[in-house]
Amino acid sequence: MSRSFDALKPYLDRAMAMQSALVLFEWDDATLAPKQAGELTGNVISILSGEYFQAVNNDEVKRLVKECRKDDTLTQVEAAQVRELSEELDKLDCIPKEEYQAFARLTSEAVRVWTEAKEQDDFGLFAPTLEKVIQYKKKFAGYRAEDGQKKYDVMLHDYEPGFNMELLDQFFETVKQEIVPLLRAVQNSKVLVRDDFLTGEFTDEQQERIGRFLAEYVGFDFSKGVMAVSAHPFTTNLHNKDVRITTHYNERLDSSLFSIIHESGHALYEFGIRDDLTQTLVGQGASTGMHESQSRFFENIIGRNKSFWLPIYEKLQEAFPEALTDIGLDLFVNAINKAAPGFIRTEADELTYSLHVLIRYELEKQLIEGDLSVEELPKAWADKYEEYLGIRPKHQREGVLQDIHWSQGSFGYFPSYALGSAFGAQLYYHMKKEMDFEGLLEEGKLDVIREYLREHIHQYGKLKDSRTILKDTTGEDFNPDYYVRYLKEKYQKLYHLEKEME
Amino acid sequence: MSRSFDALKPYLDRAMAMQSALVLFEWDDATLAPKQAGELTGNVISILSGEYFQAVNNDEVKRLVKECRKDDTLTQVEAAQVRELSEELDKLDCIPKEEYQAFARLTSEAVRVWTEAKEQDDFGLFAPTLEKVIQYKKKFAGYRAEDGQKKYDVMLHDYEPGFNMELLDQFFETVKQEIVPLLRAVQNSKVLVRDDFLTGEFTDEQQERIGRFLAEYVGFDFSKGVMAVSAHPFTTNLHNKDVRITTHYNERLDSSLFSIIHESGHALYEFGIRDDLTQTLVGQGASTGMHESQSRFFENIIGRNKSFWLPIYEKLQEAFPEALTDIGLDLFVNAINKAAPGFIRTEADELTYSLHVLIRYELEKQLIEGDLSVEELPKAWADKYEEYLGIRPKHQREGVLQDIHWSQGSFGYFPSYALGSAFGAQLYYHMKKEMDFEGLLEEGKLDVIREYLREHIHQYGKLKDSRTILKDTTGEDFNPDYYVRYLKEKYQKLYHLEKEME
Repeated sequence: MSRSFDALKPYLDRAMAMQSALVLFEWDDATLAPKQAGELTGNVISILSGEYFQAVNNDEVKRLVKECRKDDTLTQVEAAQVRELSEELDKLDCIPKEEYQAFARLTSEAVRVWTEAKEQDDFGLFAPTLEKVIQYKKKFAGYRAEDGQKKYDVMLHDYEPGFNMELLDQFFETVKQEIVPLLRAVQNSKVLVRDDFLTGEFTDEQQERIGRFLAEYVGFDFSKGVMAVSAHPFTTNLHNKDVRITTHYNERLDSSLFSIIHESGHALYEFGIRDDLTQTLVGQGASTGMHESQSRFFENIIGRNKSFWLPIYEKLQEAFPEALTDIGLDLFVNAINKAAPGFIRTEADELTYSLHVLIRYELEKQLIEGDLSVEELPKAWADKYEEYLGIRPKHQREGVLQDIHWSQGSFGYFPSYALGSAFGAQLYYHMKKEMDFEGLLEEGKLDVIREYLREHIHQYGKLKDSRTILKDTTGEDFNPDYYVRYLKEKYQKLYHLEKEME
Repeated sequence: MSRSFDALKPYLDRAMAMQSALVLFEWDDATLAPKQAGELTGNVISILSGEYFQAVNNDEVKRLVKECRKDDTLTQVEAAQVRELSEELDKLDCIPKEEYQAFARLTSEAVRVWTEAKEQDDFGLFAPTLEKVIQYKKKFAGYRAEDGQKKYDVMLHDYEPGFNMELLDQFFETVKQEIVPLLRAVQNSKVLVRDDFLTGEFTDEQQERIGRFLAEYVGFDFSKGVMAVSAHPFTTNLHNKDVRITTHYNERLDSSLFSIIHESGHALYEFGIRDDLTQTLVGQGASTGMHESQSRFFENIIGRNKSFWLPIYEKLQEAFPEALTDIGLDLFVNAINKAAPGFIRTEADELTYSLHVLIRYELEKQLIEGDLSVEELPKAWADKYEEYLGIRPKHQREGVLQDIHWSQGSFGYFPSYALGSAFGAQLYYHMKKEMDFEGLLEEGKLDVIREYLREHIHQYGKLKDSRTILKDTTGEDFNPDYYVRYLKEKYQKLYHLEKEME
């Protein structure tokens, strides 16, 4: 036991309590709080945030962290917490306080401006604010960059430790070389995939009932979790015994189902985190990419797999008799795997999704490291959509204004979405060697798959970064080839491209 | 502006934020949180409680409060906050810290012991713990008592400032002298009041739909409020723009409806509190009794009034066609006013309710000021039920073990329930002079009644105590005669007792 760490513990606990309260207020706001509550509840949230900041960012904590870093008697879990806290403090310490506060004000303003600009479909309204956000982000990255480190690499590190432009360039180059032609081939294919029957007038109750069944079926434990409704589906958690997902209901019967399976994938990660890590700084997923790998693994690799539906398709037909009674399993599975270019990333199918992310990666790089100006951004955006997806957005709200991320100052976040899919594919091909993956799905034995992921990934929280997890699990460093192989195998089969492509 | 008060403000704000977070966790626990979350979320709650305690109970705050008390430039609202805080600090200061903490541990243990004892129907399990709770309460009251003040008066003051045993003895003596014979007469009456049609198999959705209508009808504003389900109905609030009520659904169609109207009465109080008071120490109801007066006013004086149902009874019939199609308005109104002695306070009708409270008041007085021992309590309880209500509990879970209050250390709380009813009756007879009360109900103009209550009661929060509110509103100090008059008029009419009693 380290005396310094013991002295640090009350600060960490206070920070955890403030963080938990903030999580609950955020959940409540998104799912339940009355319309008019915002302003006054905002007073509470701003005080709790300040208390959180105070709890970790003070001279006594800094002194203790320094002592702890020299202390070689720390347990692995203690050392990992000190490392996380130390990184957080370093990040804050090199930014002048006034600039940090000005930036916090700016991004909160920027989200409002972006919302307005999106509603008005007018990028010009957002451009000057975005310009300021980018200037701050570059300045902060400059403060934090270590000898010769590129600014965009600093940003990438925040979301995906262990990854930088060098690695991502290779990854996205592979995506571009392989997926753009694959999508062309799909579009030129004579195969028509029907999905008309997925649209209809389904009640919320009807969707909720089967949604709860599916959540439980993939392993969401309602004795430790909650499911609710919000405008945009998300997962959050207070600790590993209280994990919460949301969904929303619309006229596509598959929309809420796959968002429930997706969020359940995130939730299983949080459920799986070890008891000695939860409620500490290392009690979250390893990275945004690794988290996304689990949600996409469940949504796509499991959830869009024919073997998954085999034992439960009848149940789905019973849930939506008006839509599915006459639709066989194969027709259904084809429909939920249909690929078609669209403008909106969050609505994209598995194949085109990677291209949406590729475009954002290329643009972010040019904005931060290259000479792309904010003014030129809408045209650059549209050009890339035309080049990679073959479609050109007519409206900015379905183009450059569609995502909230940049208004929040989140640069370097987007790549994680594609990395998540790629991590998932690499895990998938490895797991197929370790177990009869499809056979387990057909027998409804998802617990075996879930347990494998818990044992190799979930339990560790932030004790390992994503590359270490991949290496320890698959015996191989991150390898994007599996992702390309996965998409090729799937879409060549679905669109009968075997001959033409091989 | 007072400099000392300005310096106090950040402490008050921190305390408010912690309190708000605790309220949200409590709400979440009662309405939504998953079963297994309790232990880990308990860690968070205990840290937030400690932070709340720290925020108000420290040397700097004590110094500032002392300065503020000497400062005559404080506004009325500032002075009221200082008064509340000062009372709170005095209360804590005279109790040795170790005893305070031991008592906190004891009551948290006592609730568990009481729950177990109630389940086992065995008072003996609870008696030793209750004995300890009472000893602590007496000791603490002794520390706090000012020259010659009785201990039970100290306890009463916590819930109902301005009231003491002298006043309450008169009140409850009146209740006993008047209501016990009235109940006898009701029981001997030949009039049979039917209420069989209120029981049936009603769905939650059916009950919720009409419940929401009724909440809105009495003035619950869903743009500033939330309604949910919990085991026991309650009202809570974050501030005057976020007020939350719960209900529960069972086989009596009137059960959830009247709990919704009752909780809406509490909620209207919170909605009505002035904007400059909400989120401060004086931004709550004046006292538990005054709060209860508003909930009971809406539940009973308004909600069990024929005039209230006149414009909306058809709507209720449509909501429960299987039960009410053939039941006329008079039959329905009689049914919801039926009086019959029962063992359980929370299920009691308006007439017998006051006797349930009378019994608890007499027993508390004897436990704290007299020589009733905990050992003798079950028999004393049963004797009083037999004397006042004419029934003797066979089980302790429906007798002395029914209420949670004593296990929580809440002595002096029960009288507020009856005081609330009495305040409401006094307000009612005064309002009948100021407006055509029943006429307004018949026209559905509840806004006029609500606005009167807001103007005279709700807006002030804790700026006035309950006796001042009564005096300022009705021109008269608290007068229990109105309560007796109200019950007599109502039940003499319903049970055709006019001749016999007058």
